[in-house]
Amino acid sequence: MIAEILATGDEIRSGALIDSNTAHIAQELEVVGVKVVRHSSVGDDVEIIVSVLNEIGRRADICVVTGGLGPTTDDLTTEAASKAAGVELFLDQTALAAIKNIFKKLNRPMNDSNIKQAIFPVGTTRMDNPVGTAPGFMLKIDKCYFFFLPGVPAEMRTMLSDKVIPIIKKFPGNRKVCLTNTISTFGLTESATGERIAGLAEEFPGIKLGLRAKFPEIHIKLYAYGDDPIRLNELLSKTSDWILDKMGKSVLSVTGDSMASVIGDLIKRQKSSIAVAESCTGGLVAHWLTDSPGASDYFIFSGVTYSNRAKIDLLGVLPETIERFGAVHEETAKEMAKGVRRIAGATYGLSISGIAGPDGGTEAKPVGTVCIGLAAPDGVEGRRFNFSFGKRSMNKVIFAETALDLLRIKLLKAGQTETIS
Amino acid sequence: MIAEILATGDEIRSGALIDSNTAHIAQELEVVGVKVVRHSSVGDDVEIIVSVLNEIGRRADICVVTGGLGPTTDDLTTEAASKAAGVELFLDQTALAAIKNIFKKLNRPMNDSNIKQAIFPVGTTRMDNPVGTAPGFMLKIDKCYFFFLPGVPAEMRTMLSDKVIPIIKKFPGNRKVCLTNTISTFGLTESATGERIAGLAEEFPGIKLGLRAKFPEIHIKLYAYGDDPIRLNELLSKTSDWILDKMGKSVLSVTGDSMASVIGDLIKRQKSSIAVAESCTGGLVAHWLTDSPGASDYFIFSGVTYSNRAKIDLLGVLPETIERFGAVHEETAKEMAKGVRRIAGATYGLSISGIAGPDGGTEAKPVGTVCIGLAAPDGVEGRRFNFSFGKRSMNKVIFAETALDLLRIKLLKAGQTETIS
Repeated sequence: MIAEILATGDEIRSGALIDSNTAHIAQELEVVGVKVVRHSSVGDDVEIIVSVLNEIGRRADICVVTGGLGPTTDDLTTEAASKAAGVELFLDQTALAAIKNIFKKLNRPMNDSNIKQAIFPVGTTRMDNPVGTAPGFMLKIDKCYFFFLPGVPAEMRTMLSDKVIPIIKKFPGNRKVCLTNTISTFGLTESATGERIAGLAEEFPGIKLGLRAKFPEIHIKLYAYGDDPIRLNELLSKTSDWILDKMGKSVLSVTGDSMASVIGDLIKRQKSSIAVAESCTGGLVAHWLTDSPGASDYFIFSGVTYSNRAKIDLLGVLPETIERFGAVHEETAKEMAKGVRRIAGATYGLSISGIAGPDGGTEAKPVGTVCIGLAAPDGVEGRRFNFSFGKRSMNKVIFAETALDLLRIKLLKAGQTETIS
Repeated sequence: MIAEILATGDEIRSGALIDSNTAHIAQELEVVGVKVVRHSSVGDDVEIIVSVLNEIGRRADICVVTGGLGPTTDDLTTEAASKAAGVELFLDQTALAAIKNIFKKLNRPMNDSNIKQAIFPVGTTRMDNPVGTAPGFMLKIDKCYFFFLPGVPAEMRTMLSDKVIPIIKKFPGNRKVCLTNTISTFGLTESATGERIAGLAEEFPGIKLGLRAKFPEIHIKLYAYGDDPIRLNELLSKTSDWILDKMGKSVLSVTGDSMASVIGDLIKRQKSSIAVAESCTGGLVAHWLTDSPGASDYFIFSGVTYSNRAKIDLLGVLPETIERFGAVHEETAKEMAKGVRRIAGATYGLSISGIAGPDGGTEAKPVGTVCIGLAAPDGVEGRRFNFSFGKRSMNKVIFAETALDLLRIKLLKAGQTETIS
């Protein structure tokens, strides 16, 4: 069974937007054993969309199409689908009721233009959209089953996994299984990671390897193709163990979890709590930590103290410490960490003070310098790091991740002590 | 003159890698007035590459192809090009000498496999690669000029700008210029936005419109094609004014700026400052505000106060207010805003308290409820909103953006008062 993917939209055609949907769809299809042969993308032009749909209809068994299902006049995919299939359009009253219901729930008036989103080619199987107003639909054109999905990534992803993949899995055909596993790591570059796990291909010939930089993490993706899911799972598990052995503490999670969710799990298990004092990261650490549902169980407080005044008044940093060492210094970071731990009454206090840029650097403390403090029941430590990404947004991210990584290592050690004692 | 773009490579085909080359090439071609009609990508498979090259050769005038010029066995583009054009391959001695020279300069032994990179289809115009070992080449297949470039982004970009674009600029043909402008908006849905600016196509026939949901903002993208950049700029500017008139305060910026950077500009201009008390947004408002370089001039403090204890102890919210109304209430939000404004000594205090989910909702205050407080020199206001995106991460984003939008409107009014007085 072979598949193609089509992305529509003038932003993609003109290069204003990088199309990340297609890669996601390709991966998801490959995982369920569907071979993706070709991607295409075209702009918001009915005639061109029709001709591409007809070409694909002759070549492929399955095609996922994204974009052009919105309510506006440049959303043309539904019209093109009906023309390519040579069928009429009709107003689906059930879909219309569902869209009306969404707007009612949102407490917003529905616009007349949204009616368009309840119009489908005759012969369509409608697929409701749990996260937006545009329903998707399935339609056979020539020999190919087309799945039309919205272009908004969050909507597309939900509908792909919840609606499209289950339908495709039921299609007949001698598909092989592809099982995957993702190992998230932090601390080594992509090439250093590659060198650490060199030899994997020889050790595990059944495994295909993909390294993906998800800044600032490197994710190691393992693919196992075959017929027997039980054997493939065993193989994946052995390979993960082998990688864990080679990579050590750089491994955040053998199931691809993010730094913040790994930390959330560790803190919850130890029934401890965390408070954060952020300067240059400006709330990013707190934002990540609170992305996990249930974070209120262990996340107590974060103070984003940009100014020295706020560091002194709110965190109790000594004015003479800042005067003597400056705001970006291990000693200041230690006092920030101790201060926030004390005022919040938390098990751990984590602090970050650094220079994210583009301005504010000096020769002694260039842009990319960050000091991190970690106050724990057994004392406080201060560390300094230098990064040179040169971009404010990247510096904020690497500073935040580095601080959380220190906390993670501390939590791992605390967990070990508990187990031993 | 119309163009297509083809990306080759198994990583792209299988979705292991997101193809960013194509968007870059499309933008560069559009800027010099070449209309890009279609993108394709296929894996490392000679037969499939040949058939796509032949299709494009019949359709387009220009095609840029990336990938498959390396030294390994899965680099198949050169072979496919010769087959598609129906010509032989030959070893180019000049190219071979250049490749040998690169290795000599790098002080590295040259592999036999690199000889492959000096082999080209007969009739090729070679294009040297100043940043890597793989030369590119130009070859006419059917009616189309194909430019074959390496897939490594840095090499591709250099060769595109230094070799390909200068050649294309010399091609005859009535190439048009394309200028674009982006208007960022918040508060109306995509369909409501479309209806507000209905009639744009009739009013400004030279403008092509694209609406793009960049959750939670809607961006209106304007494209102007033509011969005279000065006239096109005038047209874009008139169209932007027309949209501003129709959309009113929903327009964040006529130059596509984000909410946080619009607020940063307004605050800086008014020489005022801001402090934030966040509950459910968990630091996201502070993170956005501090993404702008120079935010330290006006951003004083943010307290992420998840617990009631922290709201009382750190912000001075009255225990009886929380007891009577609950943590998510206009009155509590007002006290949080007043408290953080006072302790930080800021012009404005902004607070957010809500239920991001997935748990914590009640019938009276379901998940998606958020209360926002805004304390200003002329008093404090509290507002309540209900959203139903059902996803924690989306709720955090819409809560944060809504809070910042209230602040933005307040700053706009303050700016007007200043001007009048």
